[in-house]
Amino acid sequence: VRVGVVGVGLIGGSIGLAVRERLDARVSGYDRDAAVLEAARRRGAIDEARATPAETVADADIAFAAVPVSELPRIIDELLAAAPEDCCVTDVGSTKRAIVEGRSDQRFVGGHPLAGAETSGVEHARADLFCGAVWYLTPLSSTSGVLYERLHRALAAIGAAPAAIDPQVHDRVMASVSHLPHVLANVLVAQAAGTLQGSERLPATGPSFRDATRVAGANSAIWTDIYLFNRDALLTGIDEAVSRLGEVRAALAAGNRTAIEAWNEAARADREILLGGGAAGGALHELRASVPNRPGVVADIALALGNAGVNIEDMALAPSPDNSQGVVALWVRGEDAARRAEELIGALEIPVARA
Amino acid sequence: VRVGVVGVGLIGGSIGLAVRERLDARVSGYDRDAAVLEAARRRGAIDEARATPAETVADADIAFAAVPVSELPRIIDELLAAAPEDCCVTDVGSTKRAIVEGRSDQRFVGGHPLAGAETSGVEHARADLFCGAVWYLTPLSSTSGVLYERLHRALAAIGAAPAAIDPQVHDRVMASVSHLPHVLANVLVAQAAGTLQGSERLPATGPSFRDATRVAGANSAIWTDIYLFNRDALLTGIDEAVSRLGEVRAALAAGNRTAIEAWNEAARADREILLGGGAAGGALHELRASVPNRPGVVADIALALGNAGVNIEDMALAPSPDNSQGVVALWVRGEDAARRAEELIGALEIPVARA
Repeated sequence: VRVGVVGVGLIGGSIGLAVRERLDARVSGYDRDAAVLEAARRRGAIDEARATPAETVADADIAFAAVPVSELPRIIDELLAAAPEDCCVTDVGSTKRAIVEGRSDQRFVGGHPLAGAETSGVEHARADLFCGAVWYLTPLSSTSGVLYERLHRALAAIGAAPAAIDPQVHDRVMASVSHLPHVLANVLVAQAAGTLQGSERLPATGPSFRDATRVAGANSAIWTDIYLFNRDALLTGIDEAVSRLGEVRAALAAGNRTAIEAWNEAARADREILLGGGAAGGALHELRASVPNRPGVVADIALALGNAGVNIEDMALAPSPDNSQGVVALWVRGEDAARRAEELIGALEIPVARA
Repeated sequence: VRVGVVGVGLIGGSIGLAVRERLDARVSGYDRDAAVLEAARRRGAIDEARATPAETVADADIAFAAVPVSELPRIIDELLAAAPEDCCVTDVGSTKRAIVEGRSDQRFVGGHPLAGAETSGVEHARADLFCGAVWYLTPLSSTSGVLYERLHRALAAIGAAPAAIDPQVHDRVMASVSHLPHVLANVLVAQAAGTLQGSERLPATGPSFRDATRVAGANSAIWTDIYLFNRDALLTGIDEAVSRLGEVRAALAAGNRTAIEAWNEAARADREILLGGGAAGGALHELRASVPNRPGVVADIALALGNAGVNIEDMALAPSPDNSQGVVALWVRGEDAARRAEELIGALEIPVARA
């Protein structure tokens, strides 16, 4: 398989290392920073450096746009213009709606791996960066099922857990679990700095403050873009946080012990649900769905399962000889997930059965 | 030295272990939970179990009230009624203004060690729990200098860094660096749980979410009291956070890249100042101040230095034979701190010089 990677920093470089190691892929790469491109070649993240984004993907089976969010729209369009007919073009941006909107080329699938947030730079790239990491995919109904399946399998092969999600839901979720925490961390440090102003030496801050503000002032080159590209969801998130703070404020001002305690207990329960064990186990189950060979049908299935939280561990698409219809095989883990997947696919009026 | 500890959980138990080990103290203890009291005795946190708080401190040189915040006012008053004339009575509550207000007995000094937030229970008590930890003290002008010095030396002997602070400043600082982070963590998990509602399986959340919400839903038995006892400062903190969120919101809504970037860079700088290295070094300097032997003067000095962030590493008080005045010796680390301490004590119109 031939892979083109545009932008060979931490994420792009790690993709290169991973697909070379796990998929025996031949990787061509481009970076607008010649030193980064050369470093990626020396590290073995790419086989070959190319001179432009277009050349990088001219012969690719899968093309990754791994540049900062603000450059993604331009680069994706450039790659779609240059990539072959049967090349899957994807990106790794942390916001999705603004990026995928209007890009209805059947070869395009938006993506976002949840990995690598702590560092940057190709010198930190590693082949196992995505092992065990959720890799969100945001197929549209225009997306080719064949190309979606190719990307899904490649990502699973490098150890990631691909999960389809609606772009708007993705952005709302990321606003909640990542962007808003960053905003609040910034607010906390600014506020503490203001409160402590005047002390020549600052008092020790406890571990709760360290933890809560670990991401304060994250790399501006990356985060300014993220805030702005996801601003609709983030504005909603901020408004909701302000309204929740208003509720706590009211309970506090009223000295309402019962309400404060209930609010705190609810937070404890929410955190357990959100972060608790929950490592879903069970055996792999194979489902087979007979699908009309039209664009979007695989995306529909992936989204239905992804939105319901059913993880597709692996998938395989087998078109019929005349290409008029095909069978998509899906593997999900655990009896509950298998039953739920059957229901969800059935609800799409697609025939499905256990293999 | 004889130490009485009322409430022998994590903090009280650790105080017992530490003063027995480091000060060769004889420790009497009380807990309203007989099983906890017995566990403390078995663990060696106390030499002797007593039947009531009053009996526990009847022969003490230092009495620690280490019960939940909501019970502190009653217990402190009980200890002040029962303790000898020359016994220093202190507490370990995480909020101070509501507790020290109106308690002008010269034997009383409010206290708050910044340690042990992660666990609770005497089974986690350790002699080194306070090593290197800031231990805030909130002397009032009524506080006896002799007793303040005794407490300061005992705390330093068990490895803590005692630091005097105004009770209102303490509460504002704790609201900023501890209570508000807890509130925001609760808000974040509630909001994420709401956003993710409907997913049967929750998507992986990144490390930023884990870190930001580590303290969400902290022990309600402790935190409901903390929120309520520090509610004035916390309400102010919430209002300020809401106002800061409003500023970010406006910049985001306007798509103001310059403002967002500047805000993020400021947060980065604030965090470096707040949490950066800053391990103040330098040699110990001894200062000697001649003080009239009146209550409050040592507290005044300790507060002046504490509020300016000058740490008193050690102190010793030498009353004159007729008790009409005395010399307080103070050790501070580094030339800058020594010079600043001289200025601050001089500004109190107290004669001071390097030893």
